[in-house]
Amino acid sequence: MEPIERRRRHFQEELEQLKTRLLEMGGSAEEQVRLAVKALVDRDRDLVERVLQGDEAINKLHIEIDGRCFTLLALYQPMAVDLRAIVSAAKINTDLERVGDLAINIAEAARRYAAHAPVKKLIDIPRMATIAQSMLRDALDAFVRRDMDLAQHVLNEDDKLDALKTQIFRELLTHMLQDQATIEPALDLILISRHLERIGDHATNIAEDVIFMVSARDVRHHADDSQPSR
Amino acid sequence: MEPIERRRRHFQEELEQLKTRLLEMGGSAEEQVRLAVKALVDRDRDLVERVLQGDEAINKLHIEIDGRCFTLLALYQPMAVDLRAIVSAAKINTDLERVGDLAINIAEAARRYAAHAPVKKLIDIPRMATIAQSMLRDALDAFVRRDMDLAQHVLNEDDKLDALKTQIFRELLTHMLQDQATIEPALDLILISRHLERIGDHATNIAEDVIFMVSARDVRHHADDSQPSR
Repeated sequence: MEPIERRRRHFQEELEQLKTRLLEMGGSAEEQVRLAVKALVDRDRDLVERVLQGDEAINKLHIEIDGRCFTLLALYQPMAVDLRAIVSAAKINTDLERVGDLAINIAEAARRYAAHAPVKKLIDIPRMATIAQSMLRDALDAFVRRDMDLAQHVLNEDDKLDALKTQIFRELLTHMLQDQATIEPALDLILISRHLERIGDHATNIAEDVIFMVSARDVRHHADDSQPSR
Repeated sequence: MEPIERRRRHFQEELEQLKTRLLEMGGSAEEQVRLAVKALVDRDRDLVERVLQGDEAINKLHIEIDGRCFTLLALYQPMAVDLRAIVSAAKINTDLERVGDLAINIAEAARRYAAHAPVKKLIDIPRMATIAQSMLRDALDAFVRRDMDLAQHVLNEDDKLDALKTQIFRELLTHMLQDQATIEPALDLILISRHLERIGDHATNIAEDVIFMVSARDVRHHADDSQPSR
C-alpha cells in the first residue's frame, strides 16, 4: 500500500474510533440524566449517590476525547469535511460534559427535595427529561449519520421543553403562594426544570454543529481563491 | 522573502487579529453583564432593552471568530503551540457567547423584577457581578499573555462566587417564608445569582483552556514517537 493511502486509512480508522467514543460519552450523559430524574421521582438517595459517582467516568471520557481530537488535528492536518467533523466532535464533547454536570445538579437538587414532603405528583419534569434525552440521542445520531433533517427535528423539539418549563414554573408558583411549606422544595423543582431546559440547549448546540458540518462550504477552497500567492 | 517565511508571517498576523477580536468579544460580553446588573439595580427598563438588543452584535462576533479559527486551521494547518492556541480560541469563543446569553437572561429577569416592589437593597448580587466580570477579564488577559498564574487566580476566585450564591439563596428564602408577596421577585433574584455563578463557570473554563494551552506537551511529537511508520 502507498504511504499516503495507509495514512488516509489510519486517519479514517481513528476518526471512526473518535465517533464511537463520542457516542459512548453521549450514552453515559443521557443515562446520568435519566437516573438523576428517576432518583428525584423515586426519592431514592442511593441512586442520587450513584449519579454523583458516575460523573468521574464522564469527565475521564471528556479528557480522552479532547485528546483524540487534538491528536487527529496535529497528526493528520485534515481538510474540509474531515476538519469540520473533528472540530464539531470537539464542540460536541464539551456539550456532553456539561450535560453530565447538569445531571449532577439535578441529582443534588433531588437529594434536597427528598428531605421535604413532596409538593405534587411529578409528571411534567419526567416529561421534560424524556424530551431532553431523546433530543440528545437524535442530535448524536444526526452527527454520526450526517443527517440534516434529524438535526432540524432536534431544533424544533426545543419549543416543547420551553413550554413545559413555563408551565412548571406557573404551577409551582401557585403552590408556593398557597403554602409556604412548599417554597423550598418547589424552588428545587424549578431549578431542575431549568437544568433540563439547558440539557435541551446543549442538544440544540450539537444539532447546530451537525448542520454546520454538513452544509458549510469548503472554507479552504474559498480561501485559496483569495490567496493566489500561496 | 521566502514563501515559507511569508506564510508564517501571514499566519502570525491572522492569529493576532483573532486574539484582538476575541478580546473585543470578551469586552462586549463583560459590558452586557455589567449593564444587565445595572438595569436590575436601577430598575431601568430602557437599559434592559439596550442589553437585549446588544446580543446581536455578540452573536455576529461569535460567528466571525468561529470562521477565523476554522480558516486558520484549514489554511495553515498549524502545529503544537499554535494549534493549541486556535483550538483554545474556538472554545473561549463559545464560552463568551454563552456569557452573552446569560446577560440576556439577567436582563429578562431584571425586567420581571422591576414589575414588583423591591425585595431588599441589592448588595450581594452586584458584588457577584463585579467578581464574575473581573474573572472574565483576568481569564482573557491570561489567554493573551499566556499567564498561568493569572489563570490559576481565576480558578481560585470561583469559591467567592459560590459562597455569595449560597448566602443570597438563604437570605431570599427567609424573605419568601416571611412575606409571600416577595416570592416572585425573590425567585428572579435567585435565578440571577445562578446566572452570575454560571458566568464565573465560563471564566473558569477559559482559565482551564489557558492552562491546557500553556502547559500541554507537544502532542504531535509524542504521537510521532509511537508511529515510526509515518
